[in-house]
Amino acid sequence: MNNFVFQNPTKLIFGKGTIARLATEIPADRKIMVTFGGGSLKKNGVYEQVVKALAGHTYVEFWGIEPNPTVETLRKAVALGKEQQVDFLLAVGGGSVLDGTKLISAALRYEGDAWDLVLHPERTGELVPVASVMTMPATGSEMNSGAVISNKATAEKFAYYSDFPKFSILDPEVTYSIPDFQIACGLADTFVHVLEQYLTRTGESPLMDRWAEGVLQTVVEIAPKIRENKTDYYYMSQYMLCATMALNGFIAMGVSQDWCTHMIGHELTALHGITHGQSLAIVMPATMTVLQAQKHDKILQYGERVWNVMSGDENARLVKTIEKTEAFFRSLGLATRLGEVNIGEDTIAEIERRFNERKVAFGEAGNVNGTVARAILEAAL
Amino acid sequence: MNNFVFQNPTKLIFGKGTIARLATEIPADRKIMVTFGGGSLKKNGVYEQVVKALAGHTYVEFWGIEPNPTVETLRKAVALGKEQQVDFLLAVGGGSVLDGTKLISAALRYEGDAWDLVLHPERTGELVPVASVMTMPATGSEMNSGAVISNKATAEKFAYYSDFPKFSILDPEVTYSIPDFQIACGLADTFVHVLEQYLTRTGESPLMDRWAEGVLQTVVEIAPKIRENKTDYYYMSQYMLCATMALNGFIAMGVSQDWCTHMIGHELTALHGITHGQSLAIVMPATMTVLQAQKHDKILQYGERVWNVMSGDENARLVKTIEKTEAFFRSLGLATRLGEVNIGEDTIAEIERRFNERKVAFGEAGNVNGTVARAILEAAL
Repeated sequence: MNNFVFQNPTKLIFGKGTIARLATEIPADRKIMVTFGGGSLKKNGVYEQVVKALAGHTYVEFWGIEPNPTVETLRKAVALGKEQQVDFLLAVGGGSVLDGTKLISAALRYEGDAWDLVLHPERTGELVPVASVMTMPATGSEMNSGAVISNKATAEKFAYYSDFPKFSILDPEVTYSIPDFQIACGLADTFVHVLEQYLTRTGESPLMDRWAEGVLQTVVEIAPKIRENKTDYYYMSQYMLCATMALNGFIAMGVSQDWCTHMIGHELTALHGITHGQSLAIVMPATMTVLQAQKHDKILQYGERVWNVMSGDENARLVKTIEKTEAFFRSLGLATRLGEVNIGEDTIAEIERRFNERKVAFGEAGNVNGTVARAILEAAL
Repeated sequence: MNNFVFQNPTKLIFGKGTIARLATEIPADRKIMVTFGGGSLKKNGVYEQVVKALAGHTYVEFWGIEPNPTVETLRKAVALGKEQQVDFLLAVGGGSVLDGTKLISAALRYEGDAWDLVLHPERTGELVPVASVMTMPATGSEMNSGAVISNKATAEKFAYYSDFPKFSILDPEVTYSIPDFQIACGLADTFVHVLEQYLTRTGESPLMDRWAEGVLQTVVEIAPKIRENKTDYYYMSQYMLCATMALNGFIAMGVSQDWCTHMIGHELTALHGITHGQSLAIVMPATMTVLQAQKHDKILQYGERVWNVMSGDENARLVKTIEKTEAFFRSLGLATRLGEVNIGEDTIAEIERRFNERKVAFGEAGNVNGTVARAILEAAL
């Protein structure tokens, strides 16, 4: 096992009726900016619960942080927050709203433009505290320090690291009104977050392996139940818990990580607006196919423990395990091939060019450069 | 799943050579009291590493916190700390040293006697920050807010809750010199910590079940390797990680907990000085036997997933699973029967009397009173 440092100070407040706790979790003397996405929260009762809980607090609202939050939108929020001199940020929404709010947190105390901070994270200084009411389980942003920010002008999408939310409120009942496609994407995102931290080398940590497999097994178990009935509290609560536990560092202690599927997926989103979880469902099986020699032993372990793939020679089990993974994403109702979302050679060439131009190489072996990214995308055709 | 609040802010610094990080983790302007147990740390090189790392810091040393730390000893540390006006505590040792230091942390800022705080925890006020260099994996104290404090005068042993360590340094290499018996007790303690949070009701959280089973499976896997060679970094690092993850709240989100085995075990320690992990190895199989009707479904799940007990009718599988659990403790070299540690009816009667006198009842169903505690102890004869 590799040496590691782990710390995750976020307070997780989980369960039915917990939005009311906003009343006491935010100090009364703070000037709050509440950030939202679209208007759906006004239809499903979340907005009403937030307003009720914040009675007695001073706050302004900023609406309109979009999926794959753009710096163009976030600049407007920063301007409002500076003008109103806010000193606490409450993100109410999904991972995109929270991600965007993490950049606002830094930009509120920064003189220059917000995109500078994404390109030069070392310029990040003081941060305005952030908390969240998470309404869409997927990104894990509610319990980590990461964010992903897009730039519409340049069609770029980059990771940015800020601080952990002070607290995050997770009430599974607020997930009942999420559209089916978004739930499917959230389940795929959760599943791939785990694979990025797991499908690397064997023998680094048997405990971390078990915990990663535990999330995967649980997602596989609950996904069909959720497809049947997305208002079942029990299964939606497990989905919400899995999404948070998949990317809060709990399964990443001392083990290698990959993330090449995410890096390629981000390009598909940046270039074509493909929903994040959908992009991962397309790229992940192809990553496994192209890197099957390198990930050989771990794919076999994953196949055995998560998919019960026990029979046949090693090659047959590898193939079967990759098929099972793709079939799982299809069972969620997602596309798993580039052709299904009308993406072809032009985009492959552009992503290869971008990786080469940026001189980046991802994956646990640091070998997923432009050439390998092309091979993965071709395998996903 | 039950509603829950989770927060664990401890910074975990894990791996070879990490004791040197003390130099930068503790602010230079603090007046530190370093607390130790016996002198073994002067033989295994830990003391030397700590002294080297603290060069440039101001500190006093307090030696002699014993296994099952007594308030009698801790009072002396509090007196020294008050006299020296320390404002940072660094515990270097096992769970007992750290547990004792957590009480010192509160007592340093309290006017009255330290035992008051154990009996009346609501009197706890300001706390002096605590950090640790953990040298004996077992209690999980390095990443939780709990402590267990003994009173020699009254032969009592009670839980006390303070704050989480600011950071804990875990270098698996420092475990190589732990005596075999202490390693066996540490593995048993880790195993039973998980069972206390798992062997209750089924169907509360499939994810938490998987994570609990993951720790159990890992401990079962590594225990024989450690018995063969306790200087194997890989296995000792997993042991250390399992001990911490078994009692830091990560497997306890939204699920019922038991703890009756611990409460009965504490009495065996308080009355006869039985090492904590050893006491649990005696009580746990008996708890399973007596409460097998109540814990029926969960014992079957545990048997299937951890011990591969799949054949036979339900009753046969229950019996087999309890046998496997007892055999595991015996494979560590521990006693599993009261007779082996020369405890009999007198002690059973005293523990029954104490539970009745205190009007306590433990376990996930709140039904382990004096009468049930007697039944459990009789099953352990």
